[in-house]
Amino acid sequence: MDAAMIMYLVPVTGIIALLYAYSRARWVVKQDAGTDAMIEIAGHIAEGARAFLRRQYRVLSIFVISVAALLAFVSSNNPDSSPLIAISFVIGALCSGTAGFIGMNVATKANVRTTQAARTGLGPALNVAFSGGLVMGLSVVGLGVIGLGGLFIIYSNLWDTVRVINVLSGFSLGASSIALFARVGGGIYTKAADVGADLAGKVYEGIPEDDPRNPATIADNVGDNVGDVAGMGADLFESYVGSIIATMVLGAAFIPAFRSASDVTDIGAVLLPLVIAGVGILVAIVGSFFVKVKEGDSPQKALNMGEFGASFIMAILSYFIIIFMMPETWSVGENTYTSIGVFYAVLIGLGAGVMIGMITEYYTSTHRRPVIALAKQSVTGSATNVIAGLSLGMYSTGIPAIILALAIIGAFTFAGLYGIAIAALGMLSVTGIQLAVDAYGPISDNAGGIAEMAKLPAEVRERTDELDAVGNTTAAIGKGFAIGSAALTALALFAAFMQQADIDSIDVANPVILAGVLLGAMLPYVFSAMSMAAVGRAAGEMIKEVGRQFAEIPGLREGTAQADFVRCVDISTKAAIREMILPGILAISAPIIIGMIDKHMLGGLLVGVTVSGVLLAIFQSNAGGAWDNAKKLIEGTIEIDGVSYGKGSDTHKAAVVGDTVGDPLKDTSGPSLNILIKLIAVVALVIAPLIR
Amino acid sequence: MDAAMIMYLVPVTGIIALLYAYSRARWVVKQDAGTDAMIEIAGHIAEGARAFLRRQYRVLSIFVISVAALLAFVSSNNPDSSPLIAISFVIGALCSGTAGFIGMNVATKANVRTTQAARTGLGPALNVAFSGGLVMGLSVVGLGVIGLGGLFIIYSNLWDTVRVINVLSGFSLGASSIALFARVGGGIYTKAADVGADLAGKVYEGIPEDDPRNPATIADNVGDNVGDVAGMGADLFESYVGSIIATMVLGAAFIPAFRSASDVTDIGAVLLPLVIAGVGILVAIVGSFFVKVKEGDSPQKALNMGEFGASFIMAILSYFIIIFMMPETWSVGENTYTSIGVFYAVLIGLGAGVMIGMITEYYTSTHRRPVIALAKQSVTGSATNVIAGLSLGMYSTGIPAIILALAIIGAFTFAGLYGIAIAALGMLSVTGIQLAVDAYGPISDNAGGIAEMAKLPAEVRERTDELDAVGNTTAAIGKGFAIGSAALTALALFAAFMQQADIDSIDVANPVILAGVLLGAMLPYVFSAMSMAAVGRAAGEMIKEVGRQFAEIPGLREGTAQADFVRCVDISTKAAIREMILPGILAISAPIIIGMIDKHMLGGLLVGVTVSGVLLAIFQSNAGGAWDNAKKLIEGTIEIDGVSYGKGSDTHKAAVVGDTVGDPLKDTSGPSLNILIKLIAVVALVIAPLIR
Repeated sequence: MDAAMIMYLVPVTGIIALLYAYSRARWVVKQDAGTDAMIEIAGHIAEGARAFLRRQYRVLSIFVISVAALLAFVSSNNPDSSPLIAISFVIGALCSGTAGFIGMNVATKANVRTTQAARTGLGPALNVAFSGGLVMGLSVVGLGVIGLGGLFIIYSNLWDTVRVINVLSGFSLGASSIALFARVGGGIYTKAADVGADLAGKVYEGIPEDDPRNPATIADNVGDNVGDVAGMGADLFESYVGSIIATMVLGAAFIPAFRSASDVTDIGAVLLPLVIAGVGILVAIVGSFFVKVKEGDSPQKALNMGEFGASFIMAILSYFIIIFMMPETWSVGENTYTSIGVFYAVLIGLGAGVMIGMITEYYTSTHRRPVIALAKQSVTGSATNVIAGLSLGMYSTGIPAIILALAIIGAFTFAGLYGIAIAALGMLSVTGIQLAVDAYGPISDNAGGIAEMAKLPAEVRERTDELDAVGNTTAAIGKGFAIGSAALTALALFAAFMQQADIDSIDVANPVILAGVLLGAMLPYVFSAMSMAAVGRAAGEMIKEVGRQFAEIPGLREGTAQADFVRCVDISTKAAIREMILPGILAISAPIIIGMIDKHMLGGLLVGVTVSGVLLAIFQSNAGGAWDNAKKLIEGTIEIDGVSYGKGSDTHKAAVVGDTVGDPLKDTSGPSLNILIKLIAVVALVIAPLIR
Repeated sequence: MDAAMIMYLVPVTGIIALLYAYSRARWVVKQDAGTDAMIEIAGHIAEGARAFLRRQYRVLSIFVISVAALLAFVSSNNPDSSPLIAISFVIGALCSGTAGFIGMNVATKANVRTTQAARTGLGPALNVAFSGGLVMGLSVVGLGVIGLGGLFIIYSNLWDTVRVINVLSGFSLGASSIALFARVGGGIYTKAADVGADLAGKVYEGIPEDDPRNPATIADNVGDNVGDVAGMGADLFESYVGSIIATMVLGAAFIPAFRSASDVTDIGAVLLPLVIAGVGILVAIVGSFFVKVKEGDSPQKALNMGEFGASFIMAILSYFIIIFMMPETWSVGENTYTSIGVFYAVLIGLGAGVMIGMITEYYTSTHRRPVIALAKQSVTGSATNVIAGLSLGMYSTGIPAIILALAIIGAFTFAGLYGIAIAALGMLSVTGIQLAVDAYGPISDNAGGIAEMAKLPAEVRERTDELDAVGNTTAAIGKGFAIGSAALTALALFAAFMQQADIDSIDVANPVILAGVLLGAMLPYVFSAMSMAAVGRAAGEMIKEVGRQFAEIPGLREGTAQADFVRCVDISTKAAIREMILPGILAISAPIIIGMIDKHMLGGLLVGVTVSGVLLAIFQSNAGGAWDNAKKLIEGTIEIDGVSYGKGSDTHKAAVVGDTVGDPLKDTSGPSLNILIKLIAVVALVIAPLIR
């Protein structure tokens, strides 16, 4: 097997992913969609989601065309690059956008079919929800590998590998641009609707908070799809693509050494990330077969089987791939590398991903001490609940930071900067199934909402609640995974940036660079503040609109007239797109401005934004997740000092405040930081040839 | 004038400060202390404050003796140091402890006399409160300069200047140790009492929240003195001493160059920080004469006159000092320095301090847009109030970070690393009057509390309220100043550490160092989490004790029996001392452990902890300050969409939640970070000779 053959096999795995995703999607669509009421509600949600995507993609297309023209212009005189970088950029954006489109379309079909399946039993419902998620997961990895692999093949016919990779980096920028819109915009959308719907009941008397009569509930359900399905998909697509590109950039430095040492191909280190990604796709498909549950079994166990099973298989396979594609040992300058070292780096990435997920689970699960303690702090009111949640979130940064620090040191020790990049990819190699598990959550959540709105029997709601409870945990783990992979991807991109910008060292003893670190560390705060304030403003508009409808639509309060869902969907959509412009400009312009001042200062900025962004993201995600589950705990069966509290008690009200505070933290500003740190690093990587 | 003469003049300024402080203290004590009821209440507060200090100093003395023995042991074989470093350490601790003792003693006498003076008019009341604060301010700078200057004279007779400075660095560690106890312990104390007193009313029915019958109110008033007077004093003492030492360390590198270029002394760059500090003392005394207010005038204007007047005079004088003590130009290696460059660095420090203060004022003042917008967000409930406050706090990191970044770059451009250190000192040169203004706040706050408890006529309370309102703004500015100076001091100490540990560059492109940055950036989160959780636990104990007293002491509810204040004071005291052990161990052990692994990684840790700590501190301080004032705004005259809200409204209740959440953020975990970043840097500096 030679390099060309390997190269051509990579996109084939992507095609397999898409074909399998298509078959799962067909299967989902063929399932029974239930009663007329259910079909109607689901139709509103699907229509709202499509409306958002349509409007988002319209704005995006203007943005993408402008940036593409700019990219083509600045690259036209660069002998190491090519105006075709604009094509890479557009295709990157298209692949990410298409994956999001497919994923959301199927998710909005899977939700109601999950509800209907839940009328028969837990197993069938899990099957539909997970299949819906799997379509999203496989679309992301499939399109990622087809896009990158395909362009790599085409460009390889034109130029040498180093130039190919430079031009390819535009793909990553395209993915990041979509991620910015999907994750930040989606995050604002979903929480504007959620917080708006909840608070309307507080502001105006007699408006039910969680009820089909509340016109914001459809927008709320649309938001789950927009933020948690499409947003999460674009986020991981960005990480996936970013870590592949970064590894390719760093691998290119090995070509001369491989030429004498390798018996397979001299671009083994460049192809390796693509091959691992391709094999990861096949493993994800295999892993999905493990996800089966019988009535009475725990859905959590089934999902874990799929995820851990896939990780385990991937670990074993990557050993053989690396041994096959790389020489046993090679040297660049004074450094000697070994193939087994690269394998260890992959293991470290996989292991770090699993461990960060487990820590996240510890801090946000209803069964563990932190959330139980948080629930108890709600007895003395909302203030102590909020303080305790902030404290919990801050605490929870400790162990993940140590895991990441050890992973960075370990991967570097075993395989240099290449090791850090390949560790990021190791973590992301099972993205296909990870994302399936992530997307399963909002689908189940939607299924529950539909059951409620369609007034289905209690046992249906119980089953969807069980799926949803598991979904909360998987969502928390998925968030931890997304942050961890974003961190490693950003560091990989940082290493790639240094290589491309011809930077040997970034010395923070130099105050100019130190100032860069400080400014970088500040950006996540301002970015978070912007997205939080955006949610506040948009939720305010939503509250007013709900109040207006209840005042002006006769019979709405009594349930005889229908609410104007479309207006609420429209408010969220407009707000999401309007409010993400400023943070977007901030994220894109900051690295360009600092890079023009001094490329080393830009290096400092990247370090600052990554380190600060990761910690702030973990803090926000875990605090938000813990508040959410503390509220759930109090709604359930918890006893505090012998007294049990349920819905409507003062303790519950206090916990609801924490939950509402946590909403934008965990679903808007926290996840947005994943995008911020990667986007800034990608922009730096793309402009690197210009400032070297 | 030669070096020896300059050297001997420095402690003289410190003695002048103490003499003037003594005369102001005598004057304060001679004022009328008012009615028997007032004297009794003030006596409780003073007794509580002394009880805390006694217990704190007992624990501290064990800590100080142990660390001193350890320091003497590890330094005994180091030819660049000496076991006498233990003496520096003990004297540093003693000076800081004594300053805190004097300041708090006078503050607890000034409070009731301010109340009494307020019965006559605003002017006399301001005069008493400010005089009380001035005693604190002058004690801090006086003892700092006497201690450092005196030890410098003694050691200079024993060794060469470089060794003198090494041994002197123990003084800074002593100051930091006290600051840790006073600021972190004091912060926990004050908020345990405050939050506990407030929430007791929520948990048990019929217990007044802000009333002399509530046994936690005395502890609450003690807390103002413990946290805001003694804690702030120790914080600024640490910055003051740290920036002087750091400048001396960096100035030592100029000795050979000065030997040929200077016509005054070859240790001009080493002596300069002491001289600036000494002159700053005289300027602070002069500035204090400007603080006069007539009935009808604004106390804010009077305080501003004192502060800005002193800053202005200091700026002019420092020009002549620098021109006198330094050659016009000199070179070290490839770098050329100029005396005018050093002067610019001082100006930059002074200017940055004033600007950060003004930004803080903008984000936390009741008259400005951010707080007004925050107050409006309270209409939709406590959740939106909390979200908006978090967002405001995060936003508010933006401009201060840019100011600091520019200050760092500017000071470095004009005068190298020495410039950064001297900029820190420039900011701190007017600490004497800055601290007077800071301490004025809690004294006025106490005065108001005493007026309330002693049931004085409404006009008295109105006057003390006016003083207190100004105190809130000065407190906010003071906090901004404390953070800014802590940041510059930490960076100055960082530069000094590099020189002492013989580190040329700290390359974050090296993943081990990058891991150090990540771990460093995480520490402020965990440190904040610990202190917040500590407040939560201690407040919980306080709530229970208040409940117990109301249940068990007959007649307490009716006001016929007296509450057992002492028990509440005791709970806060014990909790404060118990709860600060773990954060303290974390702060001291982290740099030692990382330093033993790799001195460059320790450099990374310092960068991470400083950058992350400053931002997290600004976020917490400003969010807390804004919530506090938003609540005050709603209690007053604000109109929101044409409706005005007062005490007891739902909007007010929502704002109270934000205020309570903000309490530990702005008074415990936020300020504690100032200590964390300096303490870690000082520990690194002290162990630098051992790991070089």
